[in-house]
Amino acid sequence: MSETTEKAKSSNVVWHCPAITRELRCQLNNHNSVVLWFTGLSGSGKSTIAHGVEDQLYQRQYRTYVLDGDNVRHGLCGDLGFSNQDRQENIRRIGEVARLFVDAGMVVLTAFISPFRQDRARVREILGEGNFYEIYCRCSLEVCEERDVKGLYKKARQGLVKEFTGISSPYEAPESPELILDTDQLTIAECVEKVIALLDKTGS
Amino acid sequence: MSETTEKAKSSNVVWHCPAITRELRCQLNNHNSVVLWFTGLSGSGKSTIAHGVEDQLYQRQYRTYVLDGDNVRHGLCGDLGFSNQDRQENIRRIGEVARLFVDAGMVVLTAFISPFRQDRARVREILGEGNFYEIYCRCSLEVCEERDVKGLYKKARQGLVKEFTGISSPYEAPESPELILDTDQLTIAECVEKVIALLDKTGS
Repeated sequence: MSETTEKAKSSNVVWHCPAITRELRCQLNNHNSVVLWFTGLSGSGKSTIAHGVEDQLYQRQYRTYVLDGDNVRHGLCGDLGFSNQDRQENIRRIGEVARLFVDAGMVVLTAFISPFRQDRARVREILGEGNFYEIYCRCSLEVCEERDVKGLYKKARQGLVKEFTGISSPYEAPESPELILDTDQLTIAECVEKVIALLDKTGS
Repeated sequence: MSETTEKAKSSNVVWHCPAITRELRCQLNNHNSVVLWFTGLSGSGKSTIAHGVEDQLYQRQYRTYVLDGDNVRHGLCGDLGFSNQDRQENIRRIGEVARLFVDAGMVVLTAFISPFRQDRARVREILGEGNFYEIYCRCSLEVCEERDVKGLYKKARQGLVKEFTGISSPYEAPESPELILDTDQLTIAECVEKVIALLDKTGS
């Protein structure tokens, strides 16, 4: 064994692996990290509100990230379909990624229908108490269907999209979410304001 | 339909969805986002060096995150084993998560053996040119096996761990990595310095 090898090995042994923790990151960011988990029917405003909140938080120099269908469904979860099992795995992976972002000191906003109580409960468990705020975008099916931004309700009614939440697959409303937004009564700006108030109230 | 509903729907239509982009985040962070992908045998120093680099970057107020076995194998990839197919899927998911972190404006450091050229090439493709720096922690099997920090080489020699990279499964060395660290000749501090120099040189 060469001397240099010896040196490297020794230094490896005595090297104290520095740990940049979540606490240190939050200190640097000057805010706490948390998941804002938006749930609700397609068209209930989840993604729009999440991006609106992100915009407000950016003005405060918060470090944020929105996870939604656009950046997750074709990438990380590109191998998954829409069977119950695949939907469950989809939400599990999103929960795990959200956990990593929270550990990284960020406010992560997720915008997925996430229709099943059990899946959301599992994510809450993964994240741990105080790290997961469930935000229910409550909106009547009638209004969501009238909006039909993506034209999916029409397709679901025609039977072209199977197991569509609200039409051919159930939506299980949250029983005790941290926040309810009645998105068929409030403006987007009012919804955004309520989410910001939640963060302020909880000191995030 | 009530008036409030009408109001909400209208505001939803005119609402301009604000987009906080990667560029804006990097501007806020005051640095570029990139993946530092450490690859090499078990015991070659990947994780130690990654954490050392992170420590240095934290002093510069960089926003960073290390993905390694500790925070990925039991969570996001907890459903995967060590078959070739599962290893491939493991690296794919890590690549996709790294992509999200890069989009979020962060410097993400990954520390996985990632023994197969094809898997690493796929991650490079996912990330896109200029966003992926492959860092080869080059170290002889002899030295890695002598270090055997986790006792895995001993188990592999005893046949208790199957398909162990370097012993019973191949390691395909990078052909044109952005950086080679001879970790059996350099100290950890020297390795860290070289990675920082790479970042400085490329303007990240």
